[in-house]
Amino acid sequence: MRKVHICEVGPRDGLQNAKHLMPTDAKKAWISALAAAGVEEIEVGSFVPPKLIPAMADTGEVVQYARTLPGVKVVALAPNLKGFQRALEAGAHKVTFPVSASRLHSESNVRMTPEQMVEEVRKCARYPHPGVEIEGAVSTAFGCTMQGDVPEDDVVRIAAKLAEFCDGVALADTVGYANPAQIRRVFRRVKNEIGAKLEAAHLHNTRGLGLANALAAYEEGVRHFDSSMGGLGGCPFAPGASGNVITEDLVFMFESMGVPTGISLEQLFRAREVLVKGIPEEPIYGHTPLAGLPKGFRAAA
Amino acid sequence: MRKVHICEVGPRDGLQNAKHLMPTDAKKAWISALAAAGVEEIEVGSFVPPKLIPAMADTGEVVQYARTLPGVKVVALAPNLKGFQRALEAGAHKVTFPVSASRLHSESNVRMTPEQMVEEVRKCARYPHPGVEIEGAVSTAFGCTMQGDVPEDDVVRIAAKLAEFCDGVALADTVGYANPAQIRRVFRRVKNEIGAKLEAAHLHNTRGLGLANALAAYEEGVRHFDSSMGGLGGCPFAPGASGNVITEDLVFMFESMGVPTGISLEQLFRAREVLVKGIPEEPIYGHTPLAGLPKGFRAAA
Repeated sequence: MRKVHICEVGPRDGLQNAKHLMPTDAKKAWISALAAAGVEEIEVGSFVPPKLIPAMADTGEVVQYARTLPGVKVVALAPNLKGFQRALEAGAHKVTFPVSASRLHSESNVRMTPEQMVEEVRKCARYPHPGVEIEGAVSTAFGCTMQGDVPEDDVVRIAAKLAEFCDGVALADTVGYANPAQIRRVFRRVKNEIGAKLEAAHLHNTRGLGLANALAAYEEGVRHFDSSMGGLGGCPFAPGASGNVITEDLVFMFESMGVPTGISLEQLFRAREVLVKGIPEEPIYGHTPLAGLPKGFRAAA
Repeated sequence: MRKVHICEVGPRDGLQNAKHLMPTDAKKAWISALAAAGVEEIEVGSFVPPKLIPAMADTGEVVQYARTLPGVKVVALAPNLKGFQRALEAGAHKVTFPVSASRLHSESNVRMTPEQMVEEVRKCARYPHPGVEIEGAVSTAFGCTMQGDVPEDDVVRIAAKLAEFCDGVALADTVGYANPAQIRRVFRRVKNEIGAKLEAAHLHNTRGLGLANALAAYEEGVRHFDSSMGGLGGCPFAPGASGNVITEDLVFMFESMGVPTGISLEQLFRAREVLVKGIPEEPIYGHTPLAGLPKGFRAAA
């Protein structure tokens, strides 16, 4: 149970928030380089209406391509049954459904209350999906730019509902409001409620606390982390601030702590070059690739 | 014992490594703005030969100015007895002496073994210094760009020697090699050896782990942290990588966790503007000032 599993969400969360488009072939090259580095789970896109998010219009093709890479679990996001059906058709191994714990955010974003959104996901879970994993992701679980505070009771209640019919539940700090004390508290409360169904932490680095929050989650027993190469996509509210917690630095943190990730940092740095080549205008972040590995660095055994 | 004490080391560690010079008047304005934000301890300069580090040539004048700011503990670095005498003359409240735990680094940097350097500091401690605090800072305590690994036994031994005659001991991750597991382990070992004399953590953010390491140190009982506004000075080995752990993000982390720092974030952001005005060409870092405080944010009570 020492190993951590990292799901690279850059092709979805990063590119969805990027200012520039990455061509489909460049996405494939990047995903392939990620797989070569040992990344075993990749969220490659989102089945949302292409008119809404043009960057995700090729998700079907990208899912199909990613399925050909051995050892990669291919994840896609779906906001509703229609998206789920498209994900199943394309052959995703796992589909993640965001449910915002912030009432204000949920109503403004999907015109549904969190409770209605939970029922939408339940409908999907009832739809036949042999061999496909379903994840319920509680978004804005640590705060919301619209609502401010999100009551912890709401987070626990939504997580518990999702755990009734999802294979796993994730807690997401969608806007980078979380702090390590809160991470410990909320993950502990949700774990008390749903046990091993609580799986992943999806953290953002908006205020620079991404790795500290990841450390706190790890120490609370979390072993699945979402992250994005180069912190791609930035934060729409904060020019110059990275988006998701940065894969390269996250992998470095765990490996240097002696916690294996299954990922080669050297090859991850090469995948970063492929990313930059595919979307050269987009700013990317990350310290370890710039500083390089410490002299005498040993990856976790 | 919940409160943490933050020593702003930007005027010393940041400016010493910056590519540009900050005029003396700009230093004073910045230090004054830091004090106005509630920063109660500031390392304002270094008494090294001015020929070696021109950015520190005005340290005497800056110390004298900083002493006029009420409620500020004025710290200066000294590498030897001569520097210590200059610090005493100028009126520093506290003088910090770096002793590198890396034999290779120590010999190349000060042409002394770590043991010889400890004896140099002992000589200073014997020199009359009524009312002035002496800190022994074990540098490269978590690794060294020349030597690679630095044996933990060496760190513990040097810290124990310094504790014999220093008022407090700090452990410094001078080159940003530390990881949270190592931070926990080494701080715990040194604390077992010297107890409450172990005071501060001086962390760098070279590989992005600054806040995660600070969190680990906090959870091991450390309540004194060095940090630098804007991560000023960067890392000489890594263009684009920040230097010290970033004051703004560190204060945000603790305050959002409910741990008081005595510092106002709003006024800290204003001090950052004063910094930028004083040395506009120098790149600075930090997420929280870009992203702003979360909606509904409450500082620690």
